[in-house]
Amino acid sequence: MQTDSYVIKMNGSPIHQKVLDIHVNIQSPNEVEKMRLRKTSWAVRASEMAKKTFNPIRTIVDTMKSSPNPEKPMIALSIGDPTVFGNLPTDDQVMKAMKDAIDSQKYNGYAPSIGYLPSREVVAKYYTCEEAPLEAKDVILTSGCSQAIELALAVLANPGQNILVPRPGFSLYKTLALSLGIDVKLYNLIPEKSWEIDLKHMESLVDDKTACIIINNPSNPCGSVFSRKHLQKILAVASKQCVPILADEIYGDMVFEEGAYQSLASLSSNVPILSCGGLAKRWLVPGWRLGWILIHDRKDIFGKEIREGLVRLSQRILGPCTIVQGALEQIMKRTPQEFYDSTISFIKSNADLCYTTLSSVPGLCPVRPAGAMYLMVGIEIEHFPEFENDVVFTERMISEQSVFCLPATCFEYPNYFRIVLTVPEEMMIEACRRIREFCKLHYHDCDNSHDLECDK
Amino acid sequence: MQTDSYVIKMNGSPIHQKVLDIHVNIQSPNEVEKMRLRKTSWAVRASEMAKKTFNPIRTIVDTMKSSPNPEKPMIALSIGDPTVFGNLPTDDQVMKAMKDAIDSQKYNGYAPSIGYLPSREVVAKYYTCEEAPLEAKDVILTSGCSQAIELALAVLANPGQNILVPRPGFSLYKTLALSLGIDVKLYNLIPEKSWEIDLKHMESLVDDKTACIIINNPSNPCGSVFSRKHLQKILAVASKQCVPILADEIYGDMVFEEGAYQSLASLSSNVPILSCGGLAKRWLVPGWRLGWILIHDRKDIFGKEIREGLVRLSQRILGPCTIVQGALEQIMKRTPQEFYDSTISFIKSNADLCYTTLSSVPGLCPVRPAGAMYLMVGIEIEHFPEFENDVVFTERMISEQSVFCLPATCFEYPNYFRIVLTVPEEMMIEACRRIREFCKLHYHDCDNSHDLECDK
Repeated sequence: MQTDSYVIKMNGSPIHQKVLDIHVNIQSPNEVEKMRLRKTSWAVRASEMAKKTFNPIRTIVDTMKSSPNPEKPMIALSIGDPTVFGNLPTDDQVMKAMKDAIDSQKYNGYAPSIGYLPSREVVAKYYTCEEAPLEAKDVILTSGCSQAIELALAVLANPGQNILVPRPGFSLYKTLALSLGIDVKLYNLIPEKSWEIDLKHMESLVDDKTACIIINNPSNPCGSVFSRKHLQKILAVASKQCVPILADEIYGDMVFEEGAYQSLASLSSNVPILSCGGLAKRWLVPGWRLGWILIHDRKDIFGKEIREGLVRLSQRILGPCTIVQGALEQIMKRTPQEFYDSTISFIKSNADLCYTTLSSVPGLCPVRPAGAMYLMVGIEIEHFPEFENDVVFTERMISEQSVFCLPATCFEYPNYFRIVLTVPEEMMIEACRRIREFCKLHYHDCDNSHDLECDK
Repeated sequence: MQTDSYVIKMNGSPIHQKVLDIHVNIQSPNEVEKMRLRKTSWAVRASEMAKKTFNPIRTIVDTMKSSPNPEKPMIALSIGDPTVFGNLPTDDQVMKAMKDAIDSQKYNGYAPSIGYLPSREVVAKYYTCEEAPLEAKDVILTSGCSQAIELALAVLANPGQNILVPRPGFSLYKTLALSLGIDVKLYNLIPEKSWEIDLKHMESLVDDKTACIIINNPSNPCGSVFSRKHLQKILAVASKQCVPILADEIYGDMVFEEGAYQSLASLSSNVPILSCGGLAKRWLVPGWRLGWILIHDRKDIFGKEIREGLVRLSQRILGPCTIVQGALEQIMKRTPQEFYDSTISFIKSNADLCYTTLSSVPGLCPVRPAGAMYLMVGIEIEHFPEFENDVVFTERMISEQSVFCLPATCFEYPNYFRIVLTVPEEMMIEACRRIREFCKLHYHDCDNSHDLECDK
């Protein structure tokens, strides 16, 4: 045991050996060295990772410093949370399942980091199909779909690699990728084709550093749903380029036309797919943070390595809340079909209402959605010479009409804005009325106005 | 829009420009280049991060391929989960608070990524004290204490920097650090001094790349509780070296002697501290994944940057389950003092029983714990010539006596093993009986047996 608190153990390092030799008989022999190797004043800086972690929605919204018109109550069509207005409660069976899980006292302890086996079995059973069979071993439970996407990205990509991400697209992909040092390449969606992917553009972005392609279907912010044929073409590109897919299918089954949704995995014979989902949207409980990754790998391309990697990464912070895990079986078994149907029919009705109203507004080009809970509206910005872009447009809509829509710059898609369709109907009607009023007031006819075509 | 699917956009990169020039009139001009820049066969590998994420307990335990003695029922003293045997249920008020939160329907949506303001206020109020005042802005809610530690490490340290970690210590620190590319330096705890820190050793490890010192008090695996005086000395080192502290205080207040626990922050006037805690242990619900970071920074050394960094990082996967967040106020206000007292007195009684019994076993050196829920036992390995080390020792204890204790190699501390003290009393008694029988059978007297001193 050393007794001189100033003697520094060098751990075998030869640095400054000379200094040590020279000063060996002086009272504080290592003071010189210490001044060099240690901090002499406080200087605590946030890490590079913290600085690189960047939520564009927050940044854009926080700089939109406009206050609502005090004469009109605020209508927020901006928050992708179906629960905020209380008009879409979850089902009684879901709440009962949670309370039963609490009362059982069986779910207070740690679960395995990838989730309880019976809970993973339930999810596997719920999503398995002949074309894409699933077992418990193919399911990883996560703290929300966000952590599902984070784990999927973290296991597939190294810093310096890149991922392909839809434009417009959900901002979290980029946030997570950049925080992990992964580059992002944006592939275009085509509004005129109901937001289908520009496949040639997507394919052109693939290089030998492409770790995965993110496919979001049904889409946030577009509300689009890909046809079977389009999904097959996407798979053909992935297959040809040998790039795995991260499928964000959190809005799976939330489509207006029965049977219109198909999971990517159900159409794939060889492309390995990590499909991310969760309870958030379909069961209307986004705050509960129960998500999952479904591993589809029928040709054993991910193999043991990716599966083990996911298990390892899941051990960093463990999985979702055990009460929700414990309730999962009853939630999936007992939620009546009418619950899902009534959510969808409510969103569809708002979508129809909103699309129809805004289609007749000069200067706006809404794109008809087919699922999820969003509608994108193009702004013929040359007809609104007062406004520089979608951010200014939506800012002024707040200050004049107290209607808040997210400018699609948040989704890397300028001159559109996104409308959330889960608000109460009367609010939707009033919001559309105000948007119409706003556009009427600011619309200017101009000669060269036929550049922007929309699918009215 | 390009029509030739084989034309590759170079994104301005001049690579292979010559190839392009030469082949410009051939049918598939970029085929050559494509062969180079793209993958031609599947090769999906797990990321470096996944490979670096390494749970030593899993690795050691998974290689311990010994089966229990079929004639004796298994007793697992290995799992740091107080709920596994059902003898330590959480309080009725805690369950009621959860069910009320569910029934209110107020907590189904997204919370802010750092947690609901009222929930953060409750935590701040619960832990504030005159010496270390806390407000809601100083609290970040996380998905369990694991995520609290992860965020704290991720915001304080860059890859290539190092952190100081106790030996023996909880393995998650190293797992998280290595997965983030942060180096780990182990400082020694001294069993003869009730596991106090070897402060000179700790200080000698500090260099200009040291991002923080992790202090775990009360300790897992040691069950030790630092005195006020020792905590002050720790703070003096941090202050002198200008290194912030990550205090893992998840076992805070879980001490056998009333008032024996003090938070580090309550004794610090200048050292910036991120204190990590949660509901897991004190409220006996580790699976619920509600943790927190308390930011103590009275000299404004962390400043805005660390606070903002934590907020940014929290946006990656959002916070803990909203139902637990919603229940937090009632959990903290209504849980009766008797609940905490009875947990502690149960653990203390098991600790006394276990310590007393094993103290009289030849070849074992238990160290008396003062809190948390663990007890460490030294093995005078030279008296057990059949066993190479603690791993083999505990392996054989499984196969002969069906008693499973974690070898302290899991905590970087060979020739000790850890006992979890939360098992039912009769199980504790039986386990100690079998451990005694096991040691008696394998103990060999030898002449040079006085090297290892213990605090019997």
